[in-house]
Amino acid sequence: MALANSYYQNLSGSYLFSEIARRVNAFVADNPDKKVIRLGIGDVTSPLPPSVIAALRKAVDEQATAGGFRGYGPEQGYDFLRAAIVRDCFAGLGIGPDEVFVSDGAKCDLGNFQELFDAGCRVAITDPVYPVYADSNVMAGRGKARKDGKFEGMIYLPCTAENGFVPALPPERPDLVYLCYPNNPTGTVLTREQLKTWVDYARANNSVILYDAAYEAFISTPGIPRSIYEIPGAHEVAVEFRSYSKTAGFTGLRCGYVVVPTALKVQGAGAELLLRELWLRRQTTKYNGCPYIVQRGAEAVHSPAGKAETGAIIAKYMANARLIRTGFASVGLEVYGGVDAPYLWLRLPRGLGSWDFFDKLLTGANIVGTPGAGFGPSGEGYFRLTGFNTPENTLEAVERLKGFKI
Amino acid sequence: MALANSYYQNLSGSYLFSEIARRVNAFVADNPDKKVIRLGIGDVTSPLPPSVIAALRKAVDEQATAGGFRGYGPEQGYDFLRAAIVRDCFAGLGIGPDEVFVSDGAKCDLGNFQELFDAGCRVAITDPVYPVYADSNVMAGRGKARKDGKFEGMIYLPCTAENGFVPALPPERPDLVYLCYPNNPTGTVLTREQLKTWVDYARANNSVILYDAAYEAFISTPGIPRSIYEIPGAHEVAVEFRSYSKTAGFTGLRCGYVVVPTALKVQGAGAELLLRELWLRRQTTKYNGCPYIVQRGAEAVHSPAGKAETGAIIAKYMANARLIRTGFASVGLEVYGGVDAPYLWLRLPRGLGSWDFFDKLLTGANIVGTPGAGFGPSGEGYFRLTGFNTPENTLEAVERLKGFKI
Repeated sequence: MALANSYYQNLSGSYLFSEIARRVNAFVADNPDKKVIRLGIGDVTSPLPPSVIAALRKAVDEQATAGGFRGYGPEQGYDFLRAAIVRDCFAGLGIGPDEVFVSDGAKCDLGNFQELFDAGCRVAITDPVYPVYADSNVMAGRGKARKDGKFEGMIYLPCTAENGFVPALPPERPDLVYLCYPNNPTGTVLTREQLKTWVDYARANNSVILYDAAYEAFISTPGIPRSIYEIPGAHEVAVEFRSYSKTAGFTGLRCGYVVVPTALKVQGAGAELLLRELWLRRQTTKYNGCPYIVQRGAEAVHSPAGKAETGAIIAKYMANARLIRTGFASVGLEVYGGVDAPYLWLRLPRGLGSWDFFDKLLTGANIVGTPGAGFGPSGEGYFRLTGFNTPENTLEAVERLKGFKI
Repeated sequence: MALANSYYQNLSGSYLFSEIARRVNAFVADNPDKKVIRLGIGDVTSPLPPSVIAALRKAVDEQATAGGFRGYGPEQGYDFLRAAIVRDCFAGLGIGPDEVFVSDGAKCDLGNFQELFDAGCRVAITDPVYPVYADSNVMAGRGKARKDGKFEGMIYLPCTAENGFVPALPPERPDLVYLCYPNNPTGTVLTREQLKTWVDYARANNSVILYDAAYEAFISTPGIPRSIYEIPGAHEVAVEFRSYSKTAGFTGLRCGYVVVPTALKVQGAGAELLLRELWLRRQTTKYNGCPYIVQRGAEAVHSPAGKAETGAIIAKYMANARLIRTGFASVGLEVYGGVDAPYLWLRLPRGLGSWDFFDKLLTGANIVGTPGAGFGPSGEGYFRLTGFNTPENTLEAVERLKGFKI
């Protein structure tokens, strides 16, 4: 029998969303008259904006004609989109189009990127964390599930109310550090000074920062860095991942990109290698490019009309987030996030488990959220909500909190 | 400095298509009045068929409305497409929808699938071969480029005119065997009996067959198997990869799928594992699904109108292939393929190298093809052409052969 990649057995079960579904389904079956409102969802609800729809229609029409048909495109993305990205998002930051690699989404890029590194590399992740960073590394042999909910072999950087959700520098040197700002799930951000601390650390320790900026478009506080390349020296140590999913409603359309600066070098066998060249080789070998019509849709996001439209959608989600903040604060909870991110992170009263609060909120107010424990051990005692439902449902949910006792 | 995956340094340079482009560009610069016709392309040229265009338009319209909008879909594909695939392509073959995993193309699936196996697995490939099979395994440490054009550590199965392009069973047991039928680049097929020999071998030796059936739609000879699951017992040993790229013109739209039967087991640490479960875990962790609108386009390929339209396009490409067969046979070359595949494989006169023939054909008839040496050592002495250009260009190219001397 062929031998499996046994590292898959080092993963922990991914029961979070199936367990949520099980509990919600049971509640609905017992209470068919109750309207359950989902504030835990990480998916957008607004339809694609008009500029994107117009660009998709035009591209579909092109694909119907002999003169306009496009077959295989460049694996790293069409020049028209790479140029639009650089112009719109990285002006003045020293990033060129050949450092931008378009893909079918940040999850794929984040999952695949670790392939470029040696199996023995040490990985640091914040806790709580988006599970893809850890799981994709475990599949490559860089960690093993323990009973305490952590992976043996990984370096954990707790982010809790006690440290203001700012990870301390690691106690031992990691080769790779995953940072996500604005953060999923906590909704918090790093200031320029705090991010600079990490860039300086990576430069001093020859670590590589894998910087997930998927929620950059939600930043509203002046001065908060939108790209890690705003920090001097980041080009030598940081890769940045971005996505159209939450920015422009592309969760079902699939487009993202990763920036790999030419200045970023890694150690190969007997030679220094450009990380950019390794990613290019990976993508040209194992990937065949994002659909042409989708890239035309993404290009439209960078147009003046597209920016106005996506800005309005984001403003709507952020208005929901403010409603949720106010509502949950009024029942006596500490609420973090929701200012520069669509995520809100509730701190539960001492001793109240996140699954217990899940049940209380479901039965008491018929609201569904996500238990913090699902994002890592330091997420226990917290609870994630999002601004992605409709304004009407969000308002109705918050109204229900008036009679809600924790 | 973080350590790179040094296995990337075991790859050979991929100079084939860049070297072709260099020689063609130089010729065009020196001969601006000559019309060069490309018969070497592996990309389709016909626009997407009307049924697919209509489905794409409808799906784009849905994405524009609050009621019709779809965000994240299932990573393994929507039920509507998985059901259509099973009904249209695997009726009576014992394959269920939960064994079908939709993706953004066969190249991605073929490149990623090797992740599910132990790094020490032995890999067998036919020679000549589609480079992705070898390269994706080299990147995982299962081979190292040698000067003779082969990868150390891999098992080569030569396919030449001498053995009728039918690979002999391997001299030593491989864990994984890549087979592609109809074959790229040789355009040849295996009979049911010949394919059964491989299934029986895999069953007897606990090998897994990774069966690339991307060109299945081009089969015209009665009795040639379209799926490996037509062979009894294949469900326990074979994974099948399919694509809409050449079948329905999706090279720029991106959709394919892989069939992983539930009966297929591999050896994990201390336990037998279902390969299907490993692929599901891989895809849910590192992939986020094929775009909804693209899956609606793929669904349309399985409709009666879609089948008629794609059938007509394939017939056009195959008429081109017949023209090329006749034309090159008339100048005294042995021509293989082009009957059940869009690829033609010319055997060159003894002693004529495939790059020498490339230059002769380019300068003598202004026709561009692909040197066989680019597909592996056993491809030397051969030359690949395809039926994917327009009928007009193909006819013009063949006319030029009348005055062409090898």
